[in-house]
Amino acid sequence: MTETQRVVLFTRDDPLGLESGARLGPVEVAYETYGTLNADGTNAVYVCHALTGDAHAAGHHGDPGRRGWWDNLIGPGRPVDTDRFFVVCSNLLGGCQGTTGPGSENPDTGRPYGLAFPLFTVRDLVEVHRALLRHLGIARLAGAIGGSLGGMQVLQWVIDHPGEVDAALVVCASPRLSAQNIAFSAVAREAIMRDPDFQGGDYYGTGRAPDTGLSIARMMAHITYVSEASMREKFGRRLQHGDAPHFDFSVDFQVESYLQHQGESFLKRFDANTYLYMTRVMDYFDAFSDPVTVGARLEGTATRFLVVSFDSDWRFDTEHSREIVRHLQAWRVPVTFREVESPWGHDSFLLEIPEYHRTIQAFLDRTAGDLGI
Amino acid sequence: MTETQRVVLFTRDDPLGLESGARLGPVEVAYETYGTLNADGTNAVYVCHALTGDAHAAGHHGDPGRRGWWDNLIGPGRPVDTDRFFVVCSNLLGGCQGTTGPGSENPDTGRPYGLAFPLFTVRDLVEVHRALLRHLGIARLAGAIGGSLGGMQVLQWVIDHPGEVDAALVVCASPRLSAQNIAFSAVAREAIMRDPDFQGGDYYGTGRAPDTGLSIARMMAHITYVSEASMREKFGRRLQHGDAPHFDFSVDFQVESYLQHQGESFLKRFDANTYLYMTRVMDYFDAFSDPVTVGARLEGTATRFLVVSFDSDWRFDTEHSREIVRHLQAWRVPVTFREVESPWGHDSFLLEIPEYHRTIQAFLDRTAGDLGI
Repeated sequence: MTETQRVVLFTRDDPLGLESGARLGPVEVAYETYGTLNADGTNAVYVCHALTGDAHAAGHHGDPGRRGWWDNLIGPGRPVDTDRFFVVCSNLLGGCQGTTGPGSENPDTGRPYGLAFPLFTVRDLVEVHRALLRHLGIARLAGAIGGSLGGMQVLQWVIDHPGEVDAALVVCASPRLSAQNIAFSAVAREAIMRDPDFQGGDYYGTGRAPDTGLSIARMMAHITYVSEASMREKFGRRLQHGDAPHFDFSVDFQVESYLQHQGESFLKRFDANTYLYMTRVMDYFDAFSDPVTVGARLEGTATRFLVVSFDSDWRFDTEHSREIVRHLQAWRVPVTFREVESPWGHDSFLLEIPEYHRTIQAFLDRTAGDLGI
Repeated sequence: MTETQRVVLFTRDDPLGLESGARLGPVEVAYETYGTLNADGTNAVYVCHALTGDAHAAGHHGDPGRRGWWDNLIGPGRPVDTDRFFVVCSNLLGGCQGTTGPGSENPDTGRPYGLAFPLFTVRDLVEVHRALLRHLGIARLAGAIGGSLGGMQVLQWVIDHPGEVDAALVVCASPRLSAQNIAFSAVAREAIMRDPDFQGGDYYGTGRAPDTGLSIARMMAHITYVSEASMREKFGRRLQHGDAPHFDFSVDFQVESYLQHQGESFLKRFDANTYLYMTRVMDYFDAFSDPVTVGARLEGTATRFLVVSFDSDWRFDTEHSREIVRHLQAWRVPVTFREVESPWGHDSFLLEIPEYHRTIQAFLDRTAGDLGI
């Protein structure tokens, strides 16, 4: 049982320098760790979370109803084996679950940042992870793992610091979003920013927040996280009550009720401004935009990649993963690619799918063996 | 050049009986016709429009910039040849472009209906079309054609009145929406109904309308109308201005600008309540929910079907069309099925795609030949 911890990694006088040139301080980071760091400090695995994740990746804080979002993957004897590895997970920069973000106090004004929070990049997210590792006395990683936006961080980490990670596990990620991906993000942001309660992002403390916009954004995004087949399997055209449709505009089909619940429950745990920043970070991400520089860095790296996609994922379909693989292979970076069969779409990365978990376990076992841990 | 005409088909004293049991009157219908009805009245083709269409299917009302939405298909020498056929297109019941809908005056209150407008079904849409035909002195159709919701009307028409249509052309339609289809509709309606300017649907004359919700709905829907490949081809990740991203929340990628334009321009021509009704009509549509009854009606019909899908359509993918075909074949209804290659997704039905147009032309030529017209 590990409670979430917090640490101030950058201060106003010693701020974080962002890729944009902006400087940000203080930066506090919420994180959790699982397992024990070995004497050499060689057994650390960093878990990078996705768009709406948090630091609570594993364990349950003494409440079995509050298991971490990747608890099926991380733990004693699990694929990311905490008997062997020291696992670290932190809430991302710009987050709303303990790490400094747009809802945090702007020291220049004494009020929450709102949209005055600087825009950041995947590279910046990684630099904050690295600062946390320095704080924990860890110089390099046995592994880094993440799904979706998490996988983008893993990829960027190795590109920027190719000697720092032994095993890079990139799950259902993308080297750069497609026009359709950006389109969905853009509509989500429109829904939030055009909500009259958005108030230009300065809604904190006003008693009003863009709940409508945020829940619309979440409902729409949720459709893209699951496959058509899994929605059909789970809901089909079944009605919420009885056999006869209401023939009105109330919630009538089960899928409507489910989506509405997704939208509502999301409001309790997420901040609309963070949603804006995290989707924008993904839009701008373009891992191989400068292939000459990236290739020169990666050529000859000892980092081994595992790239995993799911065949029913239509948010970041297998082609996104293949593009990562093709680039890495061109630079002779060791890469194993696996497209896992799963009916559950993009959300598959959060599920306990045997082939998927076995693949991760085998990859990390080999890494541990090579490192003698 | 045909101007849009209007006719009152049902009155308060002689109302339209809806499938729900509700009665509605007056019902005025806006329609256009192209070509000339022959002496026998055997050369009529009905064009059923889709979710956001209107009666102006062809021609240009003297303004070449205002061509009808299916002008590439309908006209002299075109696949729906107005030298040969008398073509009728009407704005759907519940519409907002001339036909009685939620924005029309409710005779009980003297104010616009809003959500007091009764819910209707695809069957009701067809019954209004039939009333218009009676008004025009037409007893049966050489053909009925429609894409998407338009195709659903054609299918329902033949199911309800199997002797009334010689050639039924059902393009990229569905016999019943999938859970994912309903999910997208549900989010669109949420966006509209939760817009504070929606005012329970009674926004007419208040100077405020749910423009934000309607444009969000349209933007989201638009993503589903085009294929990922066509979005990539058209926009990719190209920026709106210059080479360097703004790194902010303004419109930066071309695809964002395009979507925003789609949302904004839609407001000028469409009513939010009509959007609610038309999406709900589609959710509830289930052509073969009672296969025994439908089969008994259709078995032995002389109506010939042409069912067309597009391989890149992911709103109603080919499987939706195949389900229609399988049912019809089981009842030995003559049906030709064609999956047309097109990169443009669901919107393909509006485009001039040679194989698609040739298929429609050949099918209607054969019908005309058989009818001796």
